[in-house]
Order: sequence, then C-alpha cells, then structure tokens
Amino acid sequence: MGEIIRPTLIVDKEICLQNIGRMAQKAAENRLRFRPHFKTHQSLEVGKWFKSFGVESITVSSVRMAEYFAMDGWKDITLAFPLNIREIHLINRLAANCNFNVVVENREATEALSKQVTSPAGVYIKIDTGYHRTGILSSRTSTIDAVIRQISSNPLTTFKGFLSHTGHTYQAKSTNEIFSRHFDALLKLKSLKNRYKKDFPSVEISLGDTPSCSICTNFDGVDEIRPGNFIFYDLMQYSLGVCKLEDIAVRMVCPVVARHLSRNEIVIYGGAIHFSKDSILNVDGKRMFGRIIINKKGKKRLLDTKNYLAKLSQEHGILKVTPAEFKSFNIGDLVEILPVHSCLTADAMGFYQTTEGELIKMIPKY
Amino acid sequence: MGEIIRPTLIVDKEICLQNIGRMAQKAAENRLRFRPHFKTHQSLEVGKWFKSFGVESITVSSVRMAEYFAMDGWKDITLAFPLNIREIHLINRLAANCNFNVVVENREATEALSKQVTSPAGVYIKIDTGYHRTGILSSRTSTIDAVIRQISSNPLTTFKGFLSHTGHTYQAKSTNEIFSRHFDALLKLKSLKNRYKKDFPSVEISLGDTPSCSICTNFDGVDEIRPGNFIFYDLMQYSLGVCKLEDIAVRMVCPVVARHLSRNEIVIYGGAIHFSKDSILNVDGKRMFGRIIINKKGKKRLLDTKNYLAKLSQEHGILKVTPAEFKSFNIGDLVEILPVHSCLTADAMGFYQTTEGELIKMIPKY
Repeated sequence: MGEIIRPTLIVDKEICLQNIGRMAQKAAENRLRFRPHFKTHQSLEVGKWFKSFGVESITVSSVRMAEYFAMDGWKDITLAFPLNIREIHLINRLAANCNFNVVVENREATEALSKQVTSPAGVYIKIDTGYHRTGILSSRTSTIDAVIRQISSNPLTTFKGFLSHTGHTYQAKSTNEIFSRHFDALLKLKSLKNRYKKDFPSVEISLGDTPSCSICTNFDGVDEIRPGNFIFYDLMQYSLGVCKLEDIAVRMVCPVVARHLSRNEIVIYGGAIHFSKDSILNVDGKRMFGRIIINKKGKKRLLDTKNYLAKLSQEHGILKVTPAEFKSFNIGDLVEILPVHSCLTADAMGFYQTTEGELIKMIPKY
Repeated sequence: MGEIIRPTLIVDKEICLQNIGRMAQKAAENRLRFRPHFKTHQSLEVGKWFKSFGVESITVSSVRMAEYFAMDGWKDITLAFPLNIREIHLINRLAANCNFNVVVENREATEALSKQVTSPAGVYIKIDTGYHRTGILSSRTSTIDAVIRQISSNPLTTFKGFLSHTGHTYQAKSTNEIFSRHFDALLKLKSLKNRYKKDFPSVEISLGDTPSCSICTNFDGVDEIRPGNFIFYDLMQYSLGVCKLEDIAVRMVCPVVARHLSRNEIVIYGGAIHFSKDSILNVDGKRMFGRIIINKKGKKRLLDTKNYLAKLSQEHGILKVTPAEFKSFNIGDLVEILPVHSCLTADAMGFYQTTEGELIKMIPKY
C-alpha cells in the first residue's frame, strides 16, 4: 500500500473467494445452477477465481462482454439484457461457438431473432416481477404465448424458460421487504412454470439479484441464480442489510491533497471518474458516495457515518469529517474509501489491483 | 449512423472546431493566453484540432494526462489539481522535459515540493473565489505570503501567479449570477495581483470555468483562461444559458430494445457505464440524464423536455415519453441522446467517434 500514488481500486482476493464460496455453496445446497453475473468484475482473471469453484455457466450484460469471456474458453453464456436486434449477427457468431442464451421481452425482437438466427441459441423470456424496468408482466400470458410461439417457430431457437431480475429489492426499506419481494417474484415465476411445464417439461426459472440471492433461503421451483455484485459487495448492499462490512472486498485508496478546517473538509484525489456518481442517503439525509477507513501506524479504523465522502467532481473528492477526526488527516496520507456501488466503480476505473499488488485488467473500452 | 449497433458517443468535429475557434478568438481579443483544459476530451487527436488554432499551452487534471500529452509533443502544461505530493517524482520527470506548472493550495504540499523538486517548475497558488472546493481564500494573505516564501525558497520553483476555478458558476440560477460570480472572482484575484505585483512583476491571473469564459466579456487583469467543457458543451451548460443547443457537439446514439406503453417508457441500450450518472433537474423536478433526438426518414427532431432520459442502471436507460411520442419509437431504432455532462460521459465511454465514423481514442485507463 505504501507505493500507491493515485486513486487505486484495491480488491481483496480472499474476501472475494469467501463471497464466491458462500454463494456457490448456497446454490449447491438448493440444487441451483450457479450462473454468476460477470458484469461486476468484467475480468478474465477474476473469472478464473470462479472456475476454481466449479463454475461453468456465466451471465453477461453485453455482446462485447460475451465475446471477451468466450475467447477465454467460457462455453455457457447467457446475455441477460433485452435482445438488441442490431447485434444478432454477432450473437450468431457466439452461438456457433458455445452454448449461448439470449433474453427477449417483446414480440418484435423475437421475430427479428427468428428471421436472422443462424446458429442454435437458447431463449429466455424476461419477466417483470415488479421492478418495472424491463420484461413482460407474468399476468400477460397472451403476450408470453405469442413470444413462445415465435421462439418455437424456428428450430434454431429453443425456449428455455423465464428469467427475472427482482431489482426492486434494491429499494427495500428493510430485509423483510427483500424477503417479501423475492417471495412475490417466486410466486409469479412458479405460476408461469406450472402453466407451461406441460408443453415445455424442462422450462426453467432463472433469477438474479444479489440482495435476495444473499439473504433469502426459499428458492422453491428455481433452477438457476445469477447474482453479480456479491463478489465485491459495497455500501449499498450493506445499507440494505445484505452483507456485513467485512464482506466488502473493494476499497478505493486515495491520497489526501488538501484540508479545510473552517468547513471540516478533506480533499482527496479521487473523483467521479474513479467512483462513478452513484450515491446512497447518509443518516443526515445527504448524499453519500463512500465511507472512510483511516490507517494510523498500521492500524485501520472505519470512521462512523458522520465522516463520509460527500461530494465528487471529475477528479476531486470531498470528505466531510467531524472536528475530532479532522486532525487524523494529513497531506499525503492515503485513505481508503468503501464505495457505494462496486459495479459502477470498477467500470469507471477500468482496472483494479489485488492487495498483493497484482494488476487485474478488465475488458478494454474499445 | 446506419452501422451503429451499440451505445456510441458521436462527436461532431465541425461543431468542436467552431467552439474552439470562438473561444480562441475571444482569448485573442482580450489578450489572454488560451490554455484549454484537456480533461474533457482526453484525446491526442482532439489535441491536434486545438493545435490548428495556434494553441500551445494546455491544462490537464492528472499526472497521467500530462504524461500522455507531453509524449505527443505538448511543451507547456499546467496540472490544475492540488499538488499530490505522492507524484512529485513523476512531476520532476515531466518538468525536466517541458514547461510544467503545478498548483498548490497549502503549506505542507508546497514544503514537500521545495524539498523534492529536481527540475525547474512553475507554481500557481490556487485561490478559492467562492466555490469552496479547494484553494486559499483571497483574504488569507498571511497563508499566501507563507506559501510564496516557501516557493521562493528553492530556485527551481518559480511563483507564477494565482489560479482559480470559479466552479460555483455551475450552480448559478441565471446568467446574471454567472456574471456576478465571475466579477466577484475578478475583484478578488485582481486585489491579489495588485498586492504582489511589486515583488513579482510578472504575477499572473489564470481562471478557468466554461460558463464565465463562454459568456462573460470582462477579463480585466486576467492573463490566461483554462476552460475545458466548451469544446463539447452539454445539457448542463445549455441549462445555465451558456451555450445554444446547436453548440453541443456530442450525442450518445443508442438502440431501442423495449417499449412499455402502460408506463410510456422506452428502454434503450445505454446506461450508467456509458453516460455516467450526473443529472440535472428537469422542468418536472425529476432527475434528467439526457434529452432525446429522434431520426425519422433522415429528419432529426429534438423532443421537448416532457420526453427525456429519466433513469440509468448499468447498461439500461429508461426514456420517459409522452403518449403522443411513444409511437415514434420502434424496437431496433437508433435514438440520439444529448448528455448532461460531456466530460464524465466521454470518460465513462473511454473513446468516441466522429460523425464521419473515425474512432477517437482517449487516454487508456491503465
């Protein structure tokens, strides 16, 4: 750590391995296929960590990400994003070389797929279980029927089942709300499974958010889980009650560059291009971009929420601190910041390094 | 444009050249050194566009950015970020090879610089003109005296003058507020210049925000301007009254992947990792991440603010549209989005392309 000179995203591999191990075990105990989402780490190296737990199936959020991992030998990939019909030619190339699944949520895209597909591909139907971002409501069975007919009209596309992202668990006010939203999603998906299993005996349920995969225990009728964020976790997950602080595997190490006693502010080198601008509400009702760990004589201490990363511009970060803690910060010190949303932080950085100093490359931007 | 298949940041070079030309002319007319901030575009290629207007001096926000442009032959660089003492060894290497200026705003960092500097470097003192992010208040002349003494104690460091970023113009409620904040900054900086010009006859004033550099006309006593965003502009600048819509040189082209009539929402492929998550308030008081241009039969039309980019997750964008406009969007269409903050959007993308389809590379992430 002594050699860090600028904002650096540090990943603790041991914590990652614990997080992966715990989720892999949960999947095994519940007889679920573990298909982790790789959009969080976006790295071949971290992919290998998953392989060591026997993971063979993965989820990605873009064609480029699919190509990146397919090139490294991954053979079973689901692209969990509503089918972008402008990329079907690339999907054909992927599907020719591995088991490739796409996700559809409307008739138009499904029809375009039927017309343009040239290699065998699996197709999941995205179900909106209440998040209302994308997907077909489970009650709209006539639309679902029409989409399944379209999928079945071409022997190259195989209807695999129903996929959902219960993303409204992220807006839960309590872990009880996470449980109830997960349970509600299960009921909706199971009713669909029951409706279609006569015609499609192997119809599957795939679900994916880190909050419910982390804390819920009922996966009745579910065939696979696709969490992603859990490998790193972050303050958002902690604030939801989904992980412990010690489960958070990432922190941004930032140099202190200025101190402003009159307003109890510390300026760090570390801004929006490093952290991204996702925030959660702090106890004082203000936006919070991270929490602070200071390191004095080799002893680390997490400061309470009265001390936090309060503002971000392109390269500057502003820590609001208490008068008592102000004197703990000196020009040139390194502080560690627990980020709010590790997926976006990793993507903003474009790379990270392990606590041992190993550079972890991510998928290049172009 | 027909070949775009995924979120693509398009830059209109003609508009950029107009924006550069206008600012270069303004600088010339006011006898100001034009030292544009390159943190917005971060590209060697776009740097060459500036060279064609005779620009020889540039501003950067990081040592890496300085190294990137210095390697391409730029010989006069100011690093406009509070000196990070952990990078002084790299600053020495830069200063050995070009005219290099750093910015200090406290005694500790200045002292570290004095001790460790090995090549001649210029030093500006950052003055806080009211933005309260970093800098020394102009009234704190004893601190300023002490910093200047420290700079002067080592013949390798030369005190160049006072530098400010009147960033609170971004929070202005009207162009009048931009004028008054700029004028207030001028008064503070000029009083400092008058105080120190006897001992330092060549003491300079350098200021830098795009809002005041774009619309203010009084630069009395100012020696150089350092705007950056003006090359692209964006919705934030437009909402401040600083540019016209037709001055905005960037747009994100995104495929439509889903339509949800029941809530008048269109889902585009284009999310937080493409746009970043900066927002402005829309007329309805909600967060807005971009405005929408649709292209029907080759005719482009900017939709009014009742239609806007309203939500972003990692790769999804949600457009809120009116019932009347809903039918204008079809699966597979490309829509253009005017971004809120072009600096962060360009950085999030990591590259962009011209309207002619030329790839513009930015500084690599590692």
